[in-house]
Parts: sequence; structure tokens; C-alpha cells
Amino acid sequence: MNLTIVGVGLISGSFSLALKDRGWVKNVIGVSRTEGSLKKALELGLIDEALPLEEAVKKSDLIYVAIPVDVTVPVMRKIMDLVNGKQIVADAGSTKSVLCEALADHPMRRRFVATHPMWGTEYSGPEAAVHDAFAGRSCVICEKEKSDKDAVETMENIYRELGMHLVYMDAAAHDTHAAYVSHISHITSFALANTVLEKEKEEDAIFELAGGGFESTVRLAKSSPAMWAPIFMQNKENVLDVLNEHISQLRKFKSCLEKENYEYLVELMENANKIRRIIK
Amino acid sequence: MNLTIVGVGLISGSFSLALKDRGWVKNVIGVSRTEGSLKKALELGLIDEALPLEEAVKKSDLIYVAIPVDVTVPVMRKIMDLVNGKQIVADAGSTKSVLCEALADHPMRRRFVATHPMWGTEYSGPEAAVHDAFAGRSCVICEKEKSDKDAVETMENIYRELGMHLVYMDAAAHDTHAAYVSHISHITSFALANTVLEKEKEEDAIFELAGGGFESTVRLAKSSPAMWAPIFMQNKENVLDVLNEHISQLRKFKSCLEKENYEYLVELMENANKIRRIIK
Repeated sequence: MNLTIVGVGLISGSFSLALKDRGWVKNVIGVSRTEGSLKKALELGLIDEALPLEEAVKKSDLIYVAIPVDVTVPVMRKIMDLVNGKQIVADAGSTKSVLCEALADHPMRRRFVATHPMWGTEYSGPEAAVHDAFAGRSCVICEKEKSDKDAVETMENIYRELGMHLVYMDAAAHDTHAAYVSHISHITSFALANTVLEKEKEEDAIFELAGGGFESTVRLAKSSPAMWAPIFMQNKENVLDVLNEHISQLRKFKSCLEKENYEYLVELMENANKIRRIIK
Repeated sequence: MNLTIVGVGLISGSFSLALKDRGWVKNVIGVSRTEGSLKKALELGLIDEALPLEEAVKKSDLIYVAIPVDVTVPVMRKIMDLVNGKQIVADAGSTKSVLCEALADHPMRRRFVATHPMWGTEYSGPEAAVHDAFAGRSCVICEKEKSDKDAVETMENIYRELGMHLVYMDAAAHDTHAAYVSHISHITSFALANTVLEKEKEEDAIFELAGGGFESTVRLAKSSPAMWAPIFMQNKENVLDVLNEHISQLRKFKSCLEKENYEYLVELMENANKIRRIIK
């Protein structure tokens, strides 16, 4: 199979490594706007060749797109205009509604598979790509019925072999759930980092004291703004819904402390403990 | 050295195991209000004997107290009334001002060392105790000058041998910093869990989708209310300060999304990225 990755960063780079490691692809083509990233991706062995988009698509059986979601639609339209009825196009974006709507009427829509492998780290760029990514996590496939069967099966087989658990939903449901299980976590982390940086002027003290709890809640604040700002914007309605609820939940804690309402404070925390049902 | 641990949970149990593993203590005495916990601690080898507080203190060189901070003061006063000029008493509590003030005028104050090993997990009770805890984390020692030199040195040596990095500050500074690097992380996690549990009625979807980012930000929501509610209450002023700032930081994200102010959104996230300086 000939693979092109569009974007040569954390997700596409790790995807390429996973397929190379299994011997499924040999010559991987990389497409990127950024010369430096292509050079790095070649050095790191994520890709074997860098080509302009048009040439790359012509040579490929599978075109895997993992770029910031604000540029995904125009790039994807270009790709879809180029592919024939045997090629497969898949994306890995964190939002699905905007893209699926944009491609809904494209004559080659059935060659496109909308996927979201729910794996990532707070790092980005070619250097962030790792071997053995994806395993043990979920991968959402949206609008399965709008893609050709062979295209969906190819993507299902790849993700399944990488150790992912497949979940099917429509694009709107994906975006709602993603706001809860991913987007809000990133916003709280960014905001928590800003809280600490704003108020805690003695950075040496944080540096010396910050332990596991702080690190795990603030880790995502290291994530790339170029990648995440477009996600929040595209999923604005859902993210605002969750964010409003989150602020109101924080206000309950605030009110408990102000009023020294110990019983209600414990009640709030006991309720939060129910998350044990969901994350082990 | 004869050791008594008061409380037989995550911290004291792990402390006992660490000292046993190094051969520094043989017969460890456990004190607890809860019969079931003592039984479990005996079974797990965290302690070798369970005794009432008074008997335990009499037999010990070091009394190590790790119980919820709302009961620490009365228990600690009892212990301090019992000790002689050679015994050492140390606590491991997450707040320091209230305890240090309560013991300030005690005739045996110099035998007490106020410590806070900044290590923990979201689990509690004897079953949560682990080998090789504490290593690589910071341990705060407060009001060093108010303790006898030999008592401080003993605790310093123990924590240092466990691989901890020692940090010295007064109790008020500790409580301010702890609000930033620990307490707020717990509140945001509890509130995030409640947000998701409140709004996301399709728990199956979260269960299937929740990946690394969600888990790391919400993990602390599994923490014990009995342990954390008293911490938040005792450190109310500092926690409220940080919580108010955090809510106002979240509102900035909200306003960016509502007004579609992409540039300011990116600016907020770029600022948050500076946390890289602090956590690697």
C-alpha cells in the first residue's frame, strides 16, 4: 500500500511509524506547508519522500490527513477533487461536523472515511511522533454509511490492528461527546496554567513543589494553540455548553468555602467520586 | 528505631513500608479509630501491632501522624502531652498554619517537626499504601527553627534517603503555595467530574471515549472527601483566592468563544504554554 500523510506531526507521524513498523507501507510520502517539518520528518524516518499535494495524491492508495481543523476543509476538498474511485482518504481530526458537512455533496464522498483516533500527547510536530501510539484507545468512525464499504473496512482493519477500539457515531454526536471527554479538559488545563502563572509570582516555589497532581491536571496546557484554538472554535456551541456548566460547578465549590458549608462540600466531592465508574 | 504511625492509610502506610524496606524499623505500631483499617494494615504488613494511642506513644522513638487535617490538632495535642524530650513527633498534613499555630505554645513544641511530603495518589486507606513512594518529589519542612536540631535532622535524613528534595518555608507560605500546586488541581478535577456527570447523560459514550487527556485531568476527582474537604476548609482563604482567579481565567476562554475572538484565544493559550518552564 502506498501512503501519503498530509501534515507530518504527532498524529500522522505516529500513524506512519505504526504502519511502517508492521511492514504495511514502505515508501511514505509527506505533504506539508512547512519545509522545516518535512526535513525533520525525513530525518526521523516518518516519511521517505516529500512531494507537493497533487503529486503525492496521484501516487497513493491511502491519503491520511492530520492537520489543524481550520485548514482541513480546503485541503480535503483539493484532495477529493484529485482522487479516483479506488483511492481512500481519511482524516484524524478532533471535530467532525464541519468537515462532514463540507464534503457531504462531493462526488467522491464515498472514498472519504471520517475518523478520530482518540490518542494524543501534549506535544506536537514531527519530533512528537512515537512508535506504538494509538493502542488501547478508542477510535471514532463517523457516518460509516456514507463511505464505500471497502474504504471503511480498510480503515477499520488498520485501526483495529493498531489496538484501537472502534466506536461508531454520527458527526454531531461525536462533537458533543468530544467536548466532554477531550476539549473541556484542555480548556481547564490552559486556564489552570494561566491561573498559576498570573497569581503565583514565586515561580521557583511552584517549580520546587509541583507534584503529580499539579502535573497531571496542567500537562495539557503545553498543547499547541495552532492545533487547539481551531478545535474549540469549530466546536464552539458544545464547548460553551460544557464550559458554562463547569464554571457553575466551580462556583458551587466557591460558595461552599465562602459559607463554610462543609456538608455540601463533601456531597459535591462524593458525587464527583462517581467518576470511578467511568475511569478505573 | 521504634515507629508509631497514627492513621494507617496511604501516606503513613507508605511511610512505614519505606522505613521497613530499608531495615530502619522492625516493629511498627499502628493507631487508628477504625478497627477495619487496623486489621487491614496488619494483614498488609504496614504495621506489626495495633495499640491505643497512649501505649503506642510510650513505646516509640518517632510518632508519625497522617490523618485528615480536621482531626490532626486534637490528636496531636494528646500526643505532645505524652512525649518526653527524646521522642520525635512529625506530621504529614497538607495544611500547616492551623497546626503550627495550635502547637506554638506547647511545652514540647521543639520535639515536633512540621512536614509535608508532596506525594500522594487519588486512592486512600491501607490498601492504597505502596512501596517506593515519595521518591523524586519535594518535601516541605515548616518552622525548622522551632524544632530541636536532632528532631529536624532525623526527619531530614529519612526524607532525603527516601529520595525527596527538601524545601523550607514558614507555615503561611506553605499554605499559599499548596493552594496553587495542589489544592486547586483537586478542586478543578472534582468540578470537572461533576460537569461531565451532570451534563453527559450517555455515560457509555464517555466510558468508551475517555482517553488520556480526560483521565489525567479528572483522575484526582477519585480522591477521598474525608481527607480533602478539611484541607480546603482549613486553607479557605488561599483556596478561594486561587479559585476566583481560576474562574476568571475560564471566563476569558468563554468570552473568546462567544465573541469568536480567535487572536485573543491563541494569546491565552500561548501564555499557558509558558507552564513548560515549570513542568517539563
